[in-house]
Amino acid sequence: MEGTVMTDGKCKSLVAYLEVGHAICGTLTPGHDPVQKVTLVPRGQARGLTWFIPTDDPTLISKQQLFARIVGGLGGRAAEEIIFGEPEVTTGAAGDLQQITSLAKQMVVTFGMSELGPWSLMDSSAQSADVFMRMMARNSKSERLAEDIDSAIKTISNSAYQIALSHIRNNRAAMDKIVEVLLEKETMNGDEFRAILSEFVEIPAENHVSPTPSPVTV
Amino acid sequence: MEGTVMTDGKCKSLVAYLEVGHAICGTLTPGHDPVQKVTLVPRGQARGLTWFIPTDDPTLISKQQLFARIVGGLGGRAAEEIIFGEPEVTTGAAGDLQQITSLAKQMVVTFGMSELGPWSLMDSSAQSADVFMRMMARNSKSERLAEDIDSAIKTISNSAYQIALSHIRNNRAAMDKIVEVLLEKETMNGDEFRAILSEFVEIPAENHVSPTPSPVTV
Amino acid sequence: MEGTVMTDGKCKSLVAYLEVGHAICGTLTPGHDPVQKVTLVPRGQARGLTWFIPTDDPTLISKQQLFARIVGGLGGRAAEEIIFGEPEVTTGAAGDLQQITSLAKQMVVTFGMSELGPWSLMDSSAQSADVFMRMMARNSKSERLAEDIDSAIKTISNSAYQIALSHIRNNRAAMDKIVEVLLEKETMNGDEFRAILSEFVEIPAENHVSPTPSPVTV
Amino acid sequence: MEGTVMTDGKCKSLVAYLEVGHAICGTLTPGHDPVQKVTLVPRGQARGLTWFIPTDDPTLISKQQLFARIVGGLGGRAAEEIIFGEPEVTTGAAGDLQQITSLAKQMVVTFGMSELGPWSLMDSSAQSADVFMRMMARNSKSERLAEDIDSAIKTISNSAYQIALSHIRNNRAAMDKIVEVLLEKETMNGDEFRAILSEFVEIPAENHVSPTPSPVTV
Amino acid sequence: MEGTVMTDGKCKSLVAYLEVGHAICGTLTPGHDPVQKVTLVPRGQARGLTWFIPTDDPTLISKQQLFARIVGGLGGRAAEEIIFGEPEVTTGAAGDLQQITSLAKQMVVTFGMSELGPWSLMDSSAQSADVFMRMMARNSKSERLAEDIDSAIKTISNSAYQIALSHIRNNRAAMDKIVEVLLEKETMNGDEFRAILSEFVEIPAENHVSPTPSPVTV
Amino acid sequence: MEGTVMTDGKCKSLVAYLEVGHAICGTLTPGHDPVQKVTLVPRGQARGLTWFIPTDDPTLISKQQLFARIVGGLGGRAAEEIIFGEPEVTTGAAGDLQQITSLAKQMVVTFGMSELGPWSLMDSSAQSADVFMRMMARNSKSERLAEDIDSAIKTISNSAYQIALSHIRNNRAAMDKIVEVLLEKETMNGDEFRAILSEFVEIPAENHVSPTPSPVTV
Repeated sequence: MEGTVMTDGKCKSLVAYLEVGHAICGTLTPGHDPVQKVTLVPRGQARGLTWFIPTDDPTLISKQQLFARIVGGLGGRAAEEIIFGEPEVTTGAAGDLQQITSLAKQMVVTFGMSELGPWSLMDSSAQSADVFMRMMARNSKSERLAEDIDSAIKTISNSAYQIALSHIRNNRAAMDKIVEVLLEKETMNGDEFRAILSEFVEIPAENHVSPTPSPVTV
Repeated sequence: MEGTVMTDGKCKSLVAYLEVGHAICGTLTPGHDPVQKVTLVPRGQARGLTWFIPTDDPTLISKQQLFARIVGGLGGRAAEEIIFGEPEVTTGAAGDLQQITSLAKQMVVTFGMSELGPWSLMDSSAQSADVFMRMMARNSKSERLAEDIDSAIKTISNSAYQIALSHIRNNRAAMDKIVEVLLEKETMNGDEFRAILSEFVEIPAENHVSPTPSPVTV
Repeated sequence: MEGTVMTDGKCKSLVAYLEVGHAICGTLTPGHDPVQKVTLVPRGQARGLTWFIPTDDPTLISKQQLFARIVGGLGGRAAEEIIFGEPEVTTGAAGDLQQITSLAKQMVVTFGMSELGPWSLMDSSAQSADVFMRMMARNSKSERLAEDIDSAIKTISNSAYQIALSHIRNNRAAMDKIVEVLLEKETMNGDEFRAILSEFVEIPAENHVSPTPSPVTV
Repeated sequence: MEGTVMTDGKCKSLVAYLEVGHAICGTLTPGHDPVQKVTLVPRGQARGLTWFIPTDDPTLISKQQLFARIVGGLGGRAAEEIIFGEPEVTTGAAGDLQQITSLAKQMVVTFGMSELGPWSLMDSSAQSADVFMRMMARNSKSERLAEDIDSAIKTISNSAYQIALSHIRNNRAAMDKIVEVLLEKETMNGDEFRAILSEFVEIPAENHVSPTPSPVTV
Repeated sequence: MEGTVMTDGKCKSLVAYLEVGHAICGTLTPGHDPVQKVTLVPRGQARGLTWFIPTDDPTLISKQQLFARIVGGLGGRAAEEIIFGEPEVTTGAAGDLQQITSLAKQMVVTFGMSELGPWSLMDSSAQSADVFMRMMARNSKSERLAEDIDSAIKTISNSAYQIALSHIRNNRAAMDKIVEVLLEKETMNGDEFRAILSEFVEIPAENHVSPTPSPVTV
Repeated sequence: MEGTVMTDGKCKSLVAYLEVGHAICGTLTPGHDPVQKVTLVPRGQARGLTWFIPTDDPTLISKQQLFARIVGGLGGRAAEEIIFGEPEVTTGAAGDLQQITSLAKQMVVTFGMSELGPWSLMDSSAQSADVFMRMMARNSKSERLAEDIDSAIKTISNSAYQIALSHIRNNRAAMDKIVEVLLEKETMNGDEFRAILSEFVEIPAENHVSPTPSPVTV
């Protein structure tokens, strides 16, 4: 394993692979919103961004759609691990990990979408205006239930990560090509992205459409 | 399983099945309040509503009535799972799950209606005006008791869900028919609803009556 | 099992059995205060009341007297279960359960009246004026001790409930007779009550006396 | 077991046995302060009192002296159990139990006088002016240590209670005699008390002296 | 074992043995600061004091120096136990126990000087200005780690106490001699103390020096 | 074992070994920032300092870089243990231990860089502005997960410490030489340091460069 002091070039390349990792893992997972744009132009703290076209109704999201978002979100870290090697994974994925864990937790705790069954594990008092009621909300949960919840969250994260890793492994050539173009052009829209990707692999039908754009980052 | 980007049509149909799921599971469970109205006209955050006629005396509710409400409340999620498939269950049932869990918890903790016996597991200090007494209320419970409570709640939820699933499975034809009419008419009163349903299945006698209406959502 | 929408008549009858359940279970348990009055005239939130004549000295109460109060308090729920069947037990007993659990807890924790021995399990700091000392009070207890306490409380409740159930089972005829009179007269004093009851069963001597009345509800 | 509605006479007798229980158990345990006075004249909430002559230096108290105080304090409950029977033990001993548990806890936690060894188990931050430091004080203790502490406290209480029970059992005749005199005279000084007691049993030498009196209740 | 009401003489003798216990256990443990003065003249709450000459640099203290301080601090309790017997150990050592436990805890938690390894077990947030961060600091520790910490602290205390006990046992004659002189003179400086002690036992070289005095109590 | 009262000379030498321990362990671990300066000139509370040249982009740091910082940070304690012996390790390394533990915790909890997988174990509510949400953040974690986290942190610390110990053991001659020069010159820049070190051992290529300096302490 060689050194890791990053040059500017290596850093840009890393960011490109992170973003293309998101875009590919999202695009290849059924139920994911279609990619609208991938860019390396920095924005605030973000050194790159992938935009997706949101679903029509944000209040009726299916289990499969939520899971697809988790796979997409883990695409960045999966790309780091496959392309650069495990010791080279970076702190850059921290924000993704936080969003993903939070989604997985909601699936288990709020939406009854895990092996624990259709059970709301977030006591209603957790949303009370009374701060002490909120504190008690957690306290009314047994340690065993807390453990079951953590374990259900981990099961979701782990299976999504395995899928993300295999998307990256199976599409290395497409990835290198898209990164190459992205490093040159800095920004790429969803149709350009899908055009290159579909040279290498078939994209699920419903992830193809590209109507009225509105920006959402993952 | 194909993609899940919802079209407006699919979404309306989903909401219809959710509401009819409530109405059927409630109506077929002895002890449930009779349906007063099912509607797809949105109200506030709700995209559809099922109204029930409340019991005479809200302070004397039997164990069987509470359990019937839990079965009815789980009718929406059960319909999603049976009609659209497990990966297509949605975030739309989150509110139901929360109400149901809260009811099941009260049965165990406040009303002594579980295998734990006629024991009030909510320490009286939990209702104290003194916030710290309220905090201590939980703390005086052992981990083992907290686990028994969680397990008793889960037993209630699970057996109610099995009943809801079998109501949906056994009444698929009635359901499709009622949803068809509902999508056309948008609103259906309790008598219309029971008229169609009773073409397919016998409704328990006491869930039939339909006196002075007053709106209650489940 | 048939439906449970309560008619006014059924509801009144339920309340009568609840109150007479208290009165009989109390009267037949040695050490219980004698009944002063049973009434179906509502008072505040209560739909019926049973009054007992308190002991001379409220600061010196024996273990047996406390246990008798728990048996009496569980008489309402026991009556529901035996007379109407387990699925028909109601939320009406919630207040009784809370008082009974609180009494059983005091026997264990404050008065050293359980198999845990003559040990005050309520740390003196629990009564401190300093809220944080009060919080720490609980925290200084081990999980194992908390479990022993819960288990001792449950032992007391369970054995009292078995006694209440057998009082109800063994005195069904007396109960029906007293409820019949009560539904007719609405109110019955202690002597009238004991007169009917003693036609069916012998009342423990010390629960017989009926001196200067002063109202206490259970 | 007969009834337990207390007559005034029975109550006075109970209080007399409680106080004489303290006095005898204290007097017969080596290291206990000598009795100064026993009285049935009520004082504030107390219905009777036993006064002891304190040691010279309250900051240097030996393990044996603390243990003797625990035995003396349990004398009241031990008397209730032996004289009136286990179902007749009363709430009157609650204050004693609290003081005794608190003493036993200090022996374990503050003075290093248990099988846990010369270890201060009360973290110094527990006395911090910072309330959160005080809260953290407990939190820094493991559950296992909390359990060891509870178990060490219980060992002390239990062995002291066995000694108190045997003092009462072995001195029933002396007790009846002293109670008889006390019920007649209402108050008895230390020398009168020891005069009667020593007719029946030998009093440890160091518990005999009776110099400058100053009131201390147990 | 006879009684324990302390006479003034016995009390003075106890304090003398406590202080000489500190002085001898400190002096005979390599790495301990040298004794500067032992006195029976009371000061504030303290009935006697032993002063030590502090090290040059209070920010660089070795593991061995900290351990020696713990042995010295336990010298008082060890003297009580060996000289007067286990039932006669007193509350007088409470302050020592608290300082010693606190030192042992710092060795484990802050300085990485236990078998748990070079790990700071006191989360950095524990020193945050934000009180809730401080509370969370503890909460981020697992129960198992808390147990390992308690166990490592106990290991240090126990092995130090065994050393203190053997110093007292092996130097009983020296101790009696020094106490005799101290009771007569009330105050003794470090050189006088070491002069008597070295008649009986060899003092570790580095604990011998006695340069510029500055008062520190243990 | 000899005494440990530190003379000024010994103390200076100890600080020199601590700092050179940092510098050598950092320099020999691939991925560590290059040494810029080592000095024995005190600064604030620090008695010596080692400065490193930071990476270009502080927001994209690799797992290997973070691990290298932990090895470097443990170099001081490792030097104490190897050079002076385990009983002579000092309180001087406390600050290093705290920084290292905090880094290892972030690797596990925030950056998904442990065997627990790409999972953010720091609930998003932990950063909420609402203090009670922050408190609940921890509470939503199960004890088992808390244990897994502690264990993953310990695994990182332990393996880093083993590497630090072997760097010190294998480079004793280089260390003595550098300390000798440092004690004479008081300050040494990165090139001087690497010049001496590379007489004894080969330095990883990427830790060699020495561009625009900016001070960072470890």
